[in-house]
Amino acid sequence: MSHFTIHPIGVIHTPYKQKQELPIQGRFETEVVSYLEVKKIYQEGLLDLKDFSHAYLLFYFHQSKKVTMVGTPYLESIPHGIFAIRSPHRPNHIGLSLIKIKEIKENKVFFIGADMFDGTPLLDIKPYVPYFDHTENATAGWLEKHFKNGNIPTGISHK
Amino acid sequence: MSHFTIHPIGVIHTPYKQKQELPIQGRFETEVVSYLEVKKIYQEGLLDLKDFSHAYLLFYFHQSKKVTMVGTPYLESIPHGIFAIRSPHRPNHIGLSLIKIKEIKENKVFFIGADMFDGTPLLDIKPYVPYFDHTENATAGWLEKHFKNGNIPTGISHK
Repeated sequence: MSHFTIHPIGVIHTPYKQKQELPIQGRFETEVVSYLEVKKIYQEGLLDLKDFSHAYLLFYFHQSKKVTMVGTPYLESIPHGIFAIRSPHRPNHIGLSLIKIKEIKENKVFFIGADMFDGTPLLDIKPYVPYFDHTENATAGWLEKHFKNGNIPTGISHK
Repeated sequence: MSHFTIHPIGVIHTPYKQKQELPIQGRFETEVVSYLEVKKIYQEGLLDLKDFSHAYLLFYFHQSKKVTMVGTPYLESIPHGIFAIRSPHRPNHIGLSLIKIKEIKENKVFFIGADMFDGTPLLDIKPYVPYFDHTENATAGWLEKHFKNGNIPTGISHK
């Protein structure tokens, strides 16, 4: 088990074509509707996903060409470990975003919350289950100070 | 971009060696401490992860040898789409679990919430950031009826 081969199950279409257009986190972009399209052979797998309000998308950071062990994220001036940040420049280049499902039509899922480039290869969709995934009193390490007292840092949305 | 190669960044050690031992969801096993071990070359990537209470583990379902488009999960008698359940028999065989971090020592992370087999290949660790990942009023499709009024279904923990 030295390596595994994975493949796109579809593609994610977003309004974001260049780095400076990308929001830091898509969930603050509540009016931008994006959509993903699974290959026709996977359409049956979407059955009953419409009954969930949210889902995780797993995708491939196809524009990242490097791997670093530490990175200095937006908002910070000092580096943190790659496993303590959400940078694309990580081993295996797999991204994870929580999205809000708007509508499902055939092999397309329309959603709110995109923070990835247009054309991003989709690897998986998992239903968000609050009974499993909801956490009370979680602490957010280096991010806490930036979000203190309900603050949303300037620039975390590209608007 | 027809396929991508990924590799284990380490391994997850859990008490679960056989299918009947696996909890349906690890988060209900609040006293079982498991640990993951990243390869030494990735140890630097753990810097500052200790300041987060929770993290996502991405891992490879190495014991799943099939892919199905629908599946009938535990608790249910009718099938749902693979993207509306958390079954291992999914395209790309990537698993996602939210875990609670107990302690980090060198290249080992001790945690609560394992729901995968002992020896599972680890693909990534991402910090859980409540400001990005926390969702209010999420609905859980076919799972809702089973968890109604605070119920935790019998057998969801293996205890």
